[in-house]
Amino acid sequence: MKIGFIGLGNMGAPMAANLLKAGHEVTGFDVAGVTVEGAANAGSAAEAATGMDAVITMLPNGEILRSVYAEIVPAGAKGAVFIDCSTVDVDSAKAAHELARAQGLLSVDAPVSGGVGGAAGGTLTFMAGGSTEAFGLAAPLFEIMGQKAVHCGEAGAGQSAKICNNMLLGISMIGTCEAFALAEKLGLSAQSLFDVVSTSSGSCWSVNTYCPVPGVGPKSPADNDYKPGFAAELMLKDLKLSQQAADSVSATTPMGAHATEIYADFVASEGKGMDFSALLPLLRGKSRG
Amino acid sequence: MKIGFIGLGNMGAPMAANLLKAGHEVTGFDVAGVTVEGAANAGSAAEAATGMDAVITMLPNGEILRSVYAEIVPAGAKGAVFIDCSTVDVDSAKAAHELARAQGLLSVDAPVSGGVGGAAGGTLTFMAGGSTEAFGLAAPLFEIMGQKAVHCGEAGAGQSAKICNNMLLGISMIGTCEAFALAEKLGLSAQSLFDVVSTSSGSCWSVNTYCPVPGVGPKSPADNDYKPGFAAELMLKDLKLSQQAADSVSATTPMGAHATEIYADFVASEGKGMDFSALLPLLRGKSRG
Repeated sequence: MKIGFIGLGNMGAPMAANLLKAGHEVTGFDVAGVTVEGAANAGSAAEAATGMDAVITMLPNGEILRSVYAEIVPAGAKGAVFIDCSTVDVDSAKAAHELARAQGLLSVDAPVSGGVGGAAGGTLTFMAGGSTEAFGLAAPLFEIMGQKAVHCGEAGAGQSAKICNNMLLGISMIGTCEAFALAEKLGLSAQSLFDVVSTSSGSCWSVNTYCPVPGVGPKSPADNDYKPGFAAELMLKDLKLSQQAADSVSATTPMGAHATEIYADFVASEGKGMDFSALLPLLRGKSRG
Repeated sequence: MKIGFIGLGNMGAPMAANLLKAGHEVTGFDVAGVTVEGAANAGSAAEAATGMDAVITMLPNGEILRSVYAEIVPAGAKGAVFIDCSTVDVDSAKAAHELARAQGLLSVDAPVSGGVGGAAGGTLTFMAGGSTEAFGLAAPLFEIMGQKAVHCGEAGAGQSAKICNNMLLGISMIGTCEAFALAEKLGLSAQSLFDVVSTSSGSCWSVNTYCPVPGVGPKSPADNDYKPGFAAELMLKDLKLSQQAADSVSATTPMGAHATEIYADFVASEGKGMDFSALLPLLRGKSRG
């Protein structure tokens, strides 16, 4: 397939490289002039979209997505599928679908989880929204760039699934850190709490797979000085998107809002550049009231 | 073994019945005059503790535990083990241990999870605190009344583990309900969200095992009109205990405190008598701000 790839940052570049490795013909464009070895270089986003079978975007936010789509959609070839892998607000994702639809193009919103490691290793998970036909065209590319793709529903459903999942993740991680910090002050060892919680009703990914205590549970960023992993800033970005979405549909998310505040404070202080589980050492140091 | 059992309520009565069924000699006492078929009836708590190999208590709160222990500990036989299965505050648990220790008796704090169903079926989980010797004496009885017992550490460690686990559970359940309520308003089906979250970083017991949406995931109270299950009042009790413990050791638990407020409001309004997952229909109805 002839694939245009727009946005060759930390995520986009290794994803494009995996498509090349699988034998596809990739034309890349990045506003910062980044190039990927083996890919053709386009002079503009519109050029990277012209005459392609698939056009993939991996961009930092919804505003940029809207302006890039306004530029590239008119260049889309008949029968092409437009796949946006950025994590953006649900409204921008729907607006991008609408631009494509108006031009008679198929489109998928397909944010990923798995981070830079998953992008490089081709083990991302894609959460996809769009028509069955569009998802069907995109699926073989998801298979190359990732190990799992879930078709969540119509336009915007991929973004919705990602922010709902990540809102719950942020809440669970804070709760996990609070539970371990409390246990420690009560004289209960982290290993004992892990042994109980990981097989009980408090079990969650943040405890069982990504435990914020060094030396407890499977290897996690806590065992690597809290280097990300999943950076606190990215968790904050997703929490903000969840609150933006909640506002737009009048949903009630008191804990989601609280988690957003906690990560905003964390990123504004010690948390910048650290893994999102580094909240635990911070909580440990804080005393009550 | 000769076992005294004090507190024959919804939990205590079936636990005592399982000990009888296993061939132990049980003498029961309950302040409300409840009796268990096949057990001898004592006229007082002290009488139920006199000359026993093991004395088990299942009481509603820490204040009652302290007053009952003041009465029964002096009646304890040399070599007896005192096992408290109540869920109480950590300080009261430690005070009960101290009363027993002063009298030269072994003791274990061993709150349970698994509810009335687990008590009747003998499938409870015990989280135990106390010396290795005391735990060793209690373990064969845990095996009869439950299917799992974790020795969490010294005096009070069982209560500490239970409230840390249940604080995290309360936080996760609220987060889960918020995520499903938000997804619904965004037009993402509950089944799609379940499919994504249950295999992703948002996965937790509240989603995977006890999903608050009827017809999604394994059977849960949501599939039975939100009849408990685990009642919202009991979740509130445990959350309050977690905050009492956090106060006593100056631990920082902002989400734990918020969860306590949310369940307090819920129990004061629609939640009384309902399962703790019934927060979802409430959140669904509420709009923002």
